[in-house]
Amino acid sequence: MKIEGKNYKTIWFENNLVKIIDQTKLPHKFEIKELKTFNDAVNAIKNMEVRGAPLIGATAAYGLVLSIIENNNLNFLEKSSSDLINSRPTAINLKWAVDRMMQKLVTSEKNRVLEIAINEAQNICDEDEKFCNEIGLNGLTLIEDIYKKKNKTINILTHCNAGWLATINWGTATAPIYHAYKKGIPVHIWVDETRPRNQGANLTSFELNEEGINNTIIADNTGGILMQKGEVDMCIVGSDRTLSNGDVCNKIGTYLKALAAYDNKIPFYVALPSSTIDWEIKDQNQIPIEERNSEELSHIEGFDEQGEIKKIQIYPKKSKSLNLAFDVTPAKYVTKLITEKGICEASSEGLNNLFK
Amino acid sequence: MKIEGKNYKTIWFENNLVKIIDQTKLPHKFEIKELKTFNDAVNAIKNMEVRGAPLIGATAAYGLVLSIIENNNLNFLEKSSSDLINSRPTAINLKWAVDRMMQKLVTSEKNRVLEIAINEAQNICDEDEKFCNEIGLNGLTLIEDIYKKKNKTINILTHCNAGWLATINWGTATAPIYHAYKKGIPVHIWVDETRPRNQGANLTSFELNEEGINNTIIADNTGGILMQKGEVDMCIVGSDRTLSNGDVCNKIGTYLKALAAYDNKIPFYVALPSSTIDWEIKDQNQIPIEERNSEELSHIEGFDEQGEIKKIQIYPKKSKSLNLAFDVTPAKYVTKLITEKGICEASSEGLNNLFK
Repeated sequence: MKIEGKNYKTIWFENNLVKIIDQTKLPHKFEIKELKTFNDAVNAIKNMEVRGAPLIGATAAYGLVLSIIENNNLNFLEKSSSDLINSRPTAINLKWAVDRMMQKLVTSEKNRVLEIAINEAQNICDEDEKFCNEIGLNGLTLIEDIYKKKNKTINILTHCNAGWLATINWGTATAPIYHAYKKGIPVHIWVDETRPRNQGANLTSFELNEEGINNTIIADNTGGILMQKGEVDMCIVGSDRTLSNGDVCNKIGTYLKALAAYDNKIPFYVALPSSTIDWEIKDQNQIPIEERNSEELSHIEGFDEQGEIKKIQIYPKKSKSLNLAFDVTPAKYVTKLITEKGICEASSEGLNNLFK
Repeated sequence: MKIEGKNYKTIWFENNLVKIIDQTKLPHKFEIKELKTFNDAVNAIKNMEVRGAPLIGATAAYGLVLSIIENNNLNFLEKSSSDLINSRPTAINLKWAVDRMMQKLVTSEKNRVLEIAINEAQNICDEDEKFCNEIGLNGLTLIEDIYKKKNKTINILTHCNAGWLATINWGTATAPIYHAYKKGIPVHIWVDETRPRNQGANLTSFELNEEGINNTIIADNTGGILMQKGEVDMCIVGSDRTLSNGDVCNKIGTYLKALAAYDNKIPFYVALPSSTIDWEIKDQNQIPIEERNSEELSHIEGFDEQGEIKKIQIYPKKSKSLNLAFDVTPAKYVTKLITEKGICEASSEGLNNLFK
């Protein structure tokens, strides 16, 4: 999708280097970063230079490519795999991508490992792009259904960034929006700021602006009253890990919006590629919820009056804070799941019908 | 209550001047400001140098005192009344305090008006302090009940600042907490940051720190998963306007926490003095919801690395934002109301039994 009028993807391989858009710099600075070593890839995931479940999966795949370039040795590769899986705990795509890569790599001849790794990482990216496009086309039908009845601008609330910046292209939650926009359906997006890292404001609003889609940033507290007042027609969010029973682990605060949507009878959709489905864990309490550095809450970055990027401390010096990154929305509050294979109930039956 | 070990109230009259703690400067700077003119009082309310429903009521009362000092004339006083009532739309205490003052003042002899105004403004403050103390003692019984069963630290979640800084002393939501603490019951407070103005972080955490009460700031998104995980024993919030049917208009985001508490069977209490009850409006849709400047969202203030206070822009330059300041929690999600007269159901019956 577009940044400053030019088309980009979030990650690509070029001259034996992995290139990414450094998302910690957005929206204040657009910067392409080169990942030269395996550690660069791990740090890019840990420091959230890349983020979003599908994109960290793709970055992990290319991380293994960099690992092979550095040291084409099975022990080193296995150590690299586990380092990648441990780099962030909650999004399941990380493990999914590493497992998929390793399945191909451990049985490959040593002199072909690199070539196979590059191919498979590229396949993961291509497939993600294709799946996101299909999620978009499937989700589009839901927007069209509402538009047929309303025949006015459709107000869609989204939380965090499940946009193209969270994937390779298109996004998950945003893919139906981009498709609706391209079809000429008037849409307006309520963008939850998404504290503490403000990925809604910094990334979702940014990417929608760049595509020319009308959007308004709101504090995370605001969605409830907008729903009460009839200002939200539907919600679409992404997922970091979807359990096989339909429970959805996603960016902290998603659950609160799902409750408000349920209370106001507004459809609440979760858009996800099948790579975010966790077929193993049966109980939401078993999902590891990442706790991140509390400085992400107490400090914030932006432009000062001179146009320079400054980081400031916004909390009282004596205060402590807790930074949990995800929560879990029980399946009963999810209207439907939008996947690459179609739309289904958020339930074992729904997911099994599509994927098993 | 204490700031830097010394006892303060939020507003007082001294040498024909009104003195306030400038709350826009907290927590970065503790500054006492003198309101010298009627306009100073209006601006203090508009610019949120004072905020919190009870405190803006008290400031309006003293605003009328300043108006009389400036120009002891009934027309001027009536104009002042309406300016004060229009200075912020949502909190009902503003109108309540102005009406109460005017009832005394319009019938007073001209040469006694000032003296009567000073007395009545002081009465409003004294009464608020007394009522908050009583709210505290009534709410204490609810904390004690949980403590009897749990016999471990009680985790209380609060939203925004309904602390002593929102009143004259004690606070509304915090009054039961201060009383519990003084009685030796171990309490820990989850403080919702409360975007966009961060009154939770800036004021509630600040005032709890100054009293030595254990607290942790969380993003507004975080309360849901803490409740799911059993980390919240009860919620206590304040109210800017309580309808006679028990619906509660309070700081934006309150409704989302009430939904999460309801979903997790955690008691959700609203603490309020009777001055915040609106006996007239019957329908939540008639409550004027204040929309404030969107710069409160897109810009934020804090300390830079040199320890200087800086304001920075945190949103993409092209983005627009919407800043609604309040939402309404339907009575069905409110476990009980804690008032100066006792604890009651959030319903017409409950409120009528106590107050009519």
